[in-house]
Parts: sequence; structure tokens; C-alpha cells
Amino acid sequence: MKIIWSGRSHNYSQKDINYLTKIIKTADPLTQGHYLKSFESIFSKYIQKNNVFAVSSAAAALEIISLLLRLKKKDEVIIPAHTYCASAIPFARNGAKIVWGDIDVNTRVVDINDIKKKITSKTKAIVIVHLYGFACDFRKIIPLCKKKKIKIIEDCAQSLGAEIGTKKVGTLGDFSCYSFHAQKNITTLGEGGMVYVKNSDLAAKVPGLRHNGHCNFKFKRKNYWSPAMGNLDMDIENTWPYKFTLSEIQCGAGIVMMKKLDKLNNLRIKRAERFINYLKNFEELKFNSSFKSKKHVYHLVSASYTPSKKVNRDDLMQILYNRYSIKCAVQYYPLYKYSLFKKMGFGKHSCPNTEKFYNNMISFPFHVWMTNKQFNYMIASVKKVLIYLRKYR
Amino acid sequence: MKIIWSGRSHNYSQKDINYLTKIIKTADPLTQGHYLKSFESIFSKYIQKNNVFAVSSAAAALEIISLLLRLKKKDEVIIPAHTYCASAIPFARNGAKIVWGDIDVNTRVVDINDIKKKITSKTKAIVIVHLYGFACDFRKIIPLCKKKKIKIIEDCAQSLGAEIGTKKVGTLGDFSCYSFHAQKNITTLGEGGMVYVKNSDLAAKVPGLRHNGHCNFKFKRKNYWSPAMGNLDMDIENTWPYKFTLSEIQCGAGIVMMKKLDKLNNLRIKRAERFINYLKNFEELKFNSSFKSKKHVYHLVSASYTPSKKVNRDDLMQILYNRYSIKCAVQYYPLYKYSLFKKMGFGKHSCPNTEKFYNNMISFPFHVWMTNKQFNYMIASVKKVLIYLRKYR
Repeated sequence: MKIIWSGRSHNYSQKDINYLTKIIKTADPLTQGHYLKSFESIFSKYIQKNNVFAVSSAAAALEIISLLLRLKKKDEVIIPAHTYCASAIPFARNGAKIVWGDIDVNTRVVDINDIKKKITSKTKAIVIVHLYGFACDFRKIIPLCKKKKIKIIEDCAQSLGAEIGTKKVGTLGDFSCYSFHAQKNITTLGEGGMVYVKNSDLAAKVPGLRHNGHCNFKFKRKNYWSPAMGNLDMDIENTWPYKFTLSEIQCGAGIVMMKKLDKLNNLRIKRAERFINYLKNFEELKFNSSFKSKKHVYHLVSASYTPSKKVNRDDLMQILYNRYSIKCAVQYYPLYKYSLFKKMGFGKHSCPNTEKFYNNMISFPFHVWMTNKQFNYMIASVKKVLIYLRKYR
Repeated sequence: MKIIWSGRSHNYSQKDINYLTKIIKTADPLTQGHYLKSFESIFSKYIQKNNVFAVSSAAAALEIISLLLRLKKKDEVIIPAHTYCASAIPFARNGAKIVWGDIDVNTRVVDINDIKKKITSKTKAIVIVHLYGFACDFRKIIPLCKKKKIKIIEDCAQSLGAEIGTKKVGTLGDFSCYSFHAQKNITTLGEGGMVYVKNSDLAAKVPGLRHNGHCNFKFKRKNYWSPAMGNLDMDIENTWPYKFTLSEIQCGAGIVMMKKLDKLNNLRIKRAERFINYLKNFEELKFNSSFKSKKHVYHLVSASYTPSKKVNRDDLMQILYNRYSIKCAVQYYPLYKYSLFKKMGFGKHSCPNTEKFYNNMISFPFHVWMTNKQFNYMIASVKKVLIYLRKYR
């Protein structure tokens, strides 16, 4: 048996395919039509917030958010270094100085106390990334941010459905983004995203920002073509809009998957819990679990392998790959280590937990279209390797 | 009968649907996989050029091109004012001063002589838009551009398959973009684009620019995860990459449509010629035809209605809409007239032909999934209205 690191997270049923086929055959228009409205409406109901807009990716969502922030040179944005690069790039492109936040040793998401230490008079925003599907409980920092007029952006690319208290992630901050990329808990045929903007005045600017500035004329026209078929305008100073539109078929896929989201998340939670329970006697492998809550929707199942003098994470990775054909991953190379960020002046950091976790972390294949047989094979194999490695610790 | 201005250009056959269904069910990964490679390869063969890259839209393609141009403040880019806004926005975003080029009265695409007049020592690039599917023959200006080191960008969003001499549009300049948006001659399920970069050194930067800077490490790694799963880098100074990726299913749609492109274009050409021939005795309605050549792939069929003292284009539009339920369009409001461009300082122009054509132009519904019956109804109705209006001229 072989367990791949899949490039997709879930399957589409024949019923889904039939629905999508109907859209492919009949939708007119093929983009920016009623499936978009419907997808946004369903999503809005799910997170219990208005002002949501479907876009081409979570990166596009963050690009829009970073434009709405009206960043000025030397404005600082605190972003965890332990995340995917798209969490940071849009803010940097729009002029922010990135300050790298460290993670908490237990939760592996950004440490609120570390953020507090790094806030200065120039801090304009903080980015909370609910990584791995794990909801980062940042409620304690909200009053401070309000006082200092610091905006909170929730990056929920990996965590749609996770909750903080009784609220869905992405609804406690000022802005949030969601991803429907191929590997996310649900995907809109491989690419897609959603942006939420709390302030309604700012939210009103999103449709223009995502679609080349298209808008209606503010006056009633004599004819539908006078003075033009439509207007182009932007109600934001010195800002050009983008083309970040999501097609009707992608929105259709979003509609069918939103209906299944909770079921898929529950399947993930159940499997993850079984995985973690199965290995509970191996304290050298520490998961960031949160049993019996909706705090964690397990986009990924990652763990930290405590090294001994003779055995470390790389041994675990190697044996799983070479002997059991299980392709695990080591994820989230600290962003300050990449040439991309170094060249742009963001190579400095003070993130000891990020460093430590990266050196010891292992992320297991966890796509839900993995069969039970495959999954059972994987967890049994991991157990075998852990037992084997104990001999050499 | 009613003829709409459709939001899609063509249908998908059952065979296409079966192919797409297979991808939806089986593709792994769902983005950036072998369908992308295959689509690019088929496209490359079609235009007979290497260095083509599928992206999320033509606007994304132009964004990448504008980054590769390395624009500096005060650099000038000459762009026709008679085009869709996405032809101009990326260059302006990246610092260019837009200089509006006028169109030729007969071809309705940018006038090479007008461009010549507007070239200054600061001109860094010119954008040739093959609008309506009509190939703008810009060969005469190539030597001057070479001499002055001015880059030529071909915007082929509407003209895939059109030819200049024996060459496909998009292959004579330094850069080009193509669109697979819903209304284009072929579409990748509603959204999509392609970028061509002549210079191979610059082309090598495109994959990173379209996908968050992802690249391989330059050295052989000890393990597939050391120092990280992949690298992020950009070989361009002071530039952040974007997320402009096209999904595998969209690429699959591109693959099936590329096989049908010539057939669909020929259908368009045949219909357009029938339309134009049918109205050839009405010299008040002037088309920009180019019979018996592949110069024009008729993405749209537009014409200029010469006004008399008593009758003008608006009468033609109104009667077609109110009496015959045919929804025509008036297209390409000169870009300098939009608030979006005015606010950014690009309201100035010297484009008399652009003004004149806009005031008299009419664009007819021309999607190829219009039935023959509908098409015949449309052209017969236009003839009736022209005859009717002659009474009042």
C-alpha cells in the first residue's frame, strides 16, 4: 500500500457532478451570475455574517483586505512566520513592514502574548492564522486592538467551520479570508476563496476591487447604453482594482460542498481523534488536539516528534517514506527563512517556538478521499515506526 | 423572438462534459498538474511559440507582463483608449503614465500612425489590442520600437486564432495575453487566460510570478523535505508574486476547446460575412470586415451607423430593443471618460476617432450558441430597421 500526499482533499459524488454538469450546460452568464449570489448567500448564512464575497483565491481575498487597510510606508503588520506565504505577501506588497509573530508551543498557532509584546505605535494590523484547522482563540487581545485602533485579520484558509466559543472563525475580527483551494476541507474545483469585511462601508468597495472597478452609474440613465453600458469607478483613493472573479461553475461547486462541509469536517474530526487516541501512549509524538469541541476541524493532522540524542523527526519521516510508502510533509518553513522574504528585508525574526516546532514537526496525509483501509494502514504503520524508534532513543 | 446579449459564447457538447467529468472525479492534484501542462502544450503548438503560461485571466497575464516590464515612475505606455479597461489597469498600477492611442477610422483598432506621433523618449511600451477579433497589423512599427527599445505587448483577449500575414496574433510582439473569459471565442468555464513571453529569461520568471514565488531549490536536497518541501524565491528585484493559478478543470476545458477553436472561429467568420453581405447595400452601416482572410475572427460584430440630421445610432439601438427584442451594445466607452481613470490622472486625451466611433457604434449579439433561426431573425430585423430609418434620414 502507498499513501500519497494528495493534491485534492475530497471527492465529488455523482449527484454533485450532475449539478455541476447542469451549470456547465446551461449557465448564462458563466461568471458573476446567480450562482455567485447563491454561493455567497449560503456562505453568509453558515458563518452568520453579511458582507461576504467570493473571489478567485484566499490570496486574492487578502490582497483586497490589504488594500482596504490603506497601509502607509512603515506601518507594521504582525503576521505569524509559521504559515503559508500567501498570509503575508499581500500586506508586504502594499507597503507594510512585516513583524513576525511566534507560535504557541502547544497550539502551534500564533501566540497572542507574543503579539502583545510586538505591538508598537506603528502597528496597523495583526493577522491571526487559524492554521491546520485549529481555531486560535484571540479574544483576549480584541480590547487592546480596539483601543489602539489595530485591525484584526483572520486567515481562515484552513479552518472553515472551526469555532471560537459559539462563533465561527472569521467572524470575530475586522476582516477574514477563506480558501477553497484543492487541498482545503472543501474546494471549488481546485481554486477559490471568500472574503469577509465587517465594516459595511468598506465591504461596499469589494465588488469593484475584485472586478476591475465595475459598478453602476449613480444616476438613472436615459438608455441602457448611455453614457455607457456600465460604469468604472473606485471609491478608494489612489487604488486600482483587480480581476479576482470566481466563475459560476466554481461557485456551483461551492454550493454543493457547503451542504457537506459539516459532514466532511466531522469525518475529519473523527478520524483525527481516532489517530491521536491510537497513539496516545507515545508521548514523544505531540498533536495539537482539541477533543470534543469544534475548535479544530483538522485541515491537517500535524505533530511534533520530540528528538532524543539518537533519533529525530527525520528518522520518522524517512522510515515512513522508504519502508511504508507513506509520504508525510514538513510544513511551514518559517517565512523569514525563504529567499523571497529575505531579499525584501524580512529575514529578521525572534520566533524561537517557530524554529523549534519546524525542526521537529511532521504532517500526515489527511485528505478525506483516503479510504478507511488506507487510513488504518497509515496509523498502524506510524505506530510500528514509533515502536521501532523507541529501541534507539 | 428575443435575442439576448449573452454572458457566454459557446456551448459544451456531451463529449466535452464527459471529459470534464472525468477530470472532476479523478484529477489529483486539482490545480497545477498535468492538465495545465497539456493545455499549455496544445496552446503552444497552436500559436507556434514556446513560453506560454496559463493564468487565471487575461488581466492576470497583463499584470505579469507589466511586472516584467520593470516600469519606473514617468515611464510612458501607449494604450488605445478604445478597449476594455483591463488592457490598461495593470500598467497604471505598476507606475506607468498611460498615453491614450487613437483608433483608425476603418479598422477600429489602434492607429499605428497615431502611436508613432505619441512616442517620446519616455515611452517604454506600446499595447496593441486586437479588438473585436480584428488583427491590428502593426508590423510597420516594429523596427522603430526595436530601435527605441520600446516593448510591444499584444492584447489578444478577443482575437485568438486571428492572423497577421501567416502568423497568429500574439506572436509578433514581445509579450502577449489571451483571454478565456465566458464571452470569448473559447472559454475555460468562464474565467481563464494565457500569457506569452518572447524572451526566455523573462519567461522563466512567470511560473513564480503566477504562483506565490514557488520554485525548486537550486541544489540537490538530502531529503524531499529538507530544508523545506519547496522553495520560494523571485528572480526580480523588489517584486512580490501573485496567485494567478488556473485549475485543472479549467485547463481541461481549455484542452477540449482548443480542438474546436478553428471550427468555432470559422463559424463566426461565415456568419459575420453573411451578416455583412446581407446588409452591403446599406452604406450607412459600416463594418470593419476583412473578407477571405484570417485577419478577423469576429469575437464581436460591430459597426458604425452614420447619423443623418434626424436619425442616429440611438434610434437604431432603441428600435431593435423595443420593437424586435434584440439587445445590442454600445461598447468601449473611451477609457479616459471613466471616473476610475480620471481620478488617477488619465482623463486627458487626443483621440478624435475614438470619440466619433463611440458615438456611432453598435455591437450586435454574436455568441455562437445563438441558433441559426435566432441569427436569421436578427439580421432580417436589422435590415427592416435600416429600411425604416431611411424614410427619416
